[in-house]
Amino acid sequence: MSLLSLFINAGLSAGGAVICYRLILDYIPIFIARKMYGNDQCKVSNAPVPEPMGVICAAVYLIVMFFFIPFPFYEWIGLDTFPYAKLLAILSGLISISTAILLGFADDMLDLRWRHKLLFPTLSSLPLLMVYYVSGNSTTVIVPTIVRHLVQPFVALPITINISFIYYIFMGMVIVFCTNAINILAGINGLESGQSLVISASVSLFNLVQVYRFGADETSQGFWHHIISLYFLLPFTACTAVLFYFNKYPSRVFVGDTFCYWSGMTLAVVSILGHFSKTLMLFFIPQTINFVYSIPQLFHLVPCPRHRLPKYDPESDTVSMSVAEFKKSELKTLGSIFITVCRSIGMLRVEEFEKDGEIYLRINNLTIINLVLKFAGPMHESSLNQLLMLIQMLSSCLAFFIRFYLASLFYDIVE
Amino acid sequence: MSLLSLFINAGLSAGGAVICYRLILDYIPIFIARKMYGNDQCKVSNAPVPEPMGVICAAVYLIVMFFFIPFPFYEWIGLDTFPYAKLLAILSGLISISTAILLGFADDMLDLRWRHKLLFPTLSSLPLLMVYYVSGNSTTVIVPTIVRHLVQPFVALPITINISFIYYIFMGMVIVFCTNAINILAGINGLESGQSLVISASVSLFNLVQVYRFGADETSQGFWHHIISLYFLLPFTACTAVLFYFNKYPSRVFVGDTFCYWSGMTLAVVSILGHFSKTLMLFFIPQTINFVYSIPQLFHLVPCPRHRLPKYDPESDTVSMSVAEFKKSELKTLGSIFITVCRSIGMLRVEEFEKDGEIYLRINNLTIINLVLKFAGPMHESSLNQLLMLIQMLSSCLAFFIRFYLASLFYDIVE
Repeated sequence: MSLLSLFINAGLSAGGAVICYRLILDYIPIFIARKMYGNDQCKVSNAPVPEPMGVICAAVYLIVMFFFIPFPFYEWIGLDTFPYAKLLAILSGLISISTAILLGFADDMLDLRWRHKLLFPTLSSLPLLMVYYVSGNSTTVIVPTIVRHLVQPFVALPITINISFIYYIFMGMVIVFCTNAINILAGINGLESGQSLVISASVSLFNLVQVYRFGADETSQGFWHHIISLYFLLPFTACTAVLFYFNKYPSRVFVGDTFCYWSGMTLAVVSILGHFSKTLMLFFIPQTINFVYSIPQLFHLVPCPRHRLPKYDPESDTVSMSVAEFKKSELKTLGSIFITVCRSIGMLRVEEFEKDGEIYLRINNLTIINLVLKFAGPMHESSLNQLLMLIQMLSSCLAFFIRFYLASLFYDIVE
Repeated sequence: MSLLSLFINAGLSAGGAVICYRLILDYIPIFIARKMYGNDQCKVSNAPVPEPMGVICAAVYLIVMFFFIPFPFYEWIGLDTFPYAKLLAILSGLISISTAILLGFADDMLDLRWRHKLLFPTLSSLPLLMVYYVSGNSTTVIVPTIVRHLVQPFVALPITINISFIYYIFMGMVIVFCTNAINILAGINGLESGQSLVISASVSLFNLVQVYRFGADETSQGFWHHIISLYFLLPFTACTAVLFYFNKYPSRVFVGDTFCYWSGMTLAVVSILGHFSKTLMLFFIPQTINFVYSIPQLFHLVPCPRHRLPKYDPESDTVSMSVAEFKKSELKTLGSIFITVCRSIGMLRVEEFEKDGEIYLRINNLTIINLVLKFAGPMHESSLNQLLMLIQMLSSCLAFFIRFYLASLFYDIVE
C-alpha cells in the first residue's frame, strides 16, 4: 500500500511540475508589472529578472502535498488502528515547511532583521519536534566502535547512549543550518536551485535504496521513515527541477530567499521525520565548507563587503574572484590568525599593498565560489555553475561512500 | 488541566499583543522604504499608509500558537493514552491558517487571479477536513422539530440525519465564504480589523459560555470543542485588537488581504474544529447581507466599477454613497429585476437621466457600506465605521438570541 501511494505521489509530482512550468510562464509578466524583480549583476544587459519565483513553485508544492495526504491513509480510514502518529508526522512537517515559505517570502519583500530570521524557523519547528517527542521517537545514538575500544581501559561505554534533550538541540540546529546554508551559497545563475536539486535527488536515491533494503518488512519503522521522506521529496524534486530549468544560465527567473528557506526546511524536515539527520549533513558537505569558510566574514572577524558575488568582466564575459580590501591595522587577532593559516595552506589569495602610507590587505571574499575561482581561474558563469554542480554531485558520491562503506568500519550496526 | 492551559494561552496572547505593538511600530518605516504602502482615498492628505501590516500580526499569531501547542498535552506526554486526535486537530487547523496567510500575502504582493484565490483555500483546507473525517467526527444534523411535525403526515423523519459528504461540502463552503466575506466588506478605516475583532470576541464569548455549561464534565467532547476554539481565538483576538488600534480612523496602517484571509480562515477553522459552523454563520450576518447584496455587481448582472468605496468630499470631510452609471439598455434581465425589486423596497437609490439621447441609470454601489450611507446620509468616516461596528455588535446580540433562545423553539436538543 505504501508503495502504491509512492507511485501516486510520483504521478502527482509530475503533474505539479507541469503546473509549475505553466504558472511560472504565467506569472513572469505579473512579477515584472509589480516591480518584483532583480537585476543580474553578471550580465551586460540590465533586463529585469522576476524574483522571488520560488514562491510559485512552493505554492504548487503545498497543493500537491495537500492533495496527496489522504492516499497513504486510505486503507486505515474508519479503522481503530488508524496510524495517527504517521499523519501527525506529515502534518507537523507541512507546518514547518509552510511557515518557512511564508518567512522566506516576507524576507524577500521586507528584508527582515537577522534576529527575526533566526527566531522564526526555530519556533516554527517546535510542532515538528514536539510530534517527534510525543510519538516516542528515539533520542538514542550509537557509540562508534572505535570510540568504545579507545576508552575501554578507562570506562566501559554502552553500545548506545540516550542523549535525550541534546538530540533535540541537535535537530533544532539542523533546521537552522539547512534553512540558511543554501541561502549563503548563492549568487550565480542556477546555483540555489541546482544545489537543492542535486541534494534532494541524492537524498531521494538514498531513501529508495533504504526502502529497497527494508522492503522485506513493510511494517518496520525504518521502511516508513524512508517512505515518508520520499513523499515529501518527490514533489519537491519535481517542482525544483522546473525552477532550475528557468533559473539556470541565462536566468529567466530568480528563486529568491523564499526558495532557499523552503528548500532548506524541506530537507531538514525529511531528515528529522526519517531519522537520518546525521546522514543529511553528509549531503551538505559543500554548504558546510562554505559556511565554515565564510565564518570570519559572517562574524566580522575580517571586514565583509555588501556583496560577495564573483566579479563580472564584460570584456571577456567571464567571472572571477571578488575581493575585500581593508587596512591591515584594522584586522582583529582571530581574523589575522585565520588569514595566516589559510594563506599558508593555499586556501586564500592575499595581497599586501601600500596606500597613503598605510599597509592594506586585499583578500578574496570567503565563499566557496570565490575559492573555486581562485583555483580554476576566471571562467564563464555557466561553466562556473556546472563546476559547482559537479562538486555537489561528487559530494553526494562521497556521502554514499561514507554512509554505506565507511560507517560500517566505525559502527557495529549500520542500517 | 484544560482550564490551566487556557490561562496560559491568555497570558501568551497578552504577550503576543505587546510584541505586535512593538513590531508594527518597528516595521512601519520598513514597509514604506520597500514601497509597500497604499494611499488613503478618503483623506485630503496623500501620505503613504503601510500595507499589508496584517502579515506582522499573523506571524506573531503563529509564533504564539507554536509556543502554546505543548501545554494542553503536557499531562499526557509519554502516556499510551496520548490524545493524538486532539493534537492532529490543532495541527491541521494551523496548516490551513498558515497557508491562508501565505495566500493573502501573495495576493497583496501579486494581485492573484480569481481562480487561484478560490482554489487555494479549498485545497489548503483538505488536511483539516481529512482530520475531521479520520477522527470519526459526526456528520449528523438534527432535524428541526417543526419540520418533523410538518412532514409527519406524509413521512416519518428521524430526529437526526447523517448527511455524510454533504456536510463536508458545507464545511468547504464555510471556509471559502469566510476567507472572502471579510475581504469584500472593506474599504474604510478600521472596518476589516474592527468587524473581525467583534466577531472573534463574540465567538470567544460564545465558547466561554459553552465551556461554563459543559464545565461539569471536562472529558466531554463538547467541552473540548469550545476549549480548542478558545485556544485559537484568544491569541487572534489579542493580535487583532492591536492591529485595530493602528488601523482605526485615521489609519496609520492598512491590514491588507493578508489579514482578511487570515481572519476568515481562523474563524472558519475554529467553527469546524469546534463543531459550530452553523452557529458561526449567525455571527457573519452583516457579511452575508453584504455578500448577497453584492452578488449582482460581483457576477456582473449590473455593471461594477473598479472601486466601490464611499465617495469622499474634502469640503465637508465626510463620505457619501458612491454610484455606478450605465446605459439602461445595457442592463441584463436579471439585473433589471433586481433593480426593480430593491428599489420598490427602498434598498436601492435609482436615478434615471438622459444623456446624448439615451436613458442612463445611476444606482448606489451594492455594498452594505453604501446602503448604510443611503439611509443615514453623508457622515464622517470615523462615525461610519462606528455605525458599522454597532451593526456588527447588534448582529452578535441577535446571534446569541437565535442560538440560545430561538433554537430551542425549533430543536428538541440544543447544547
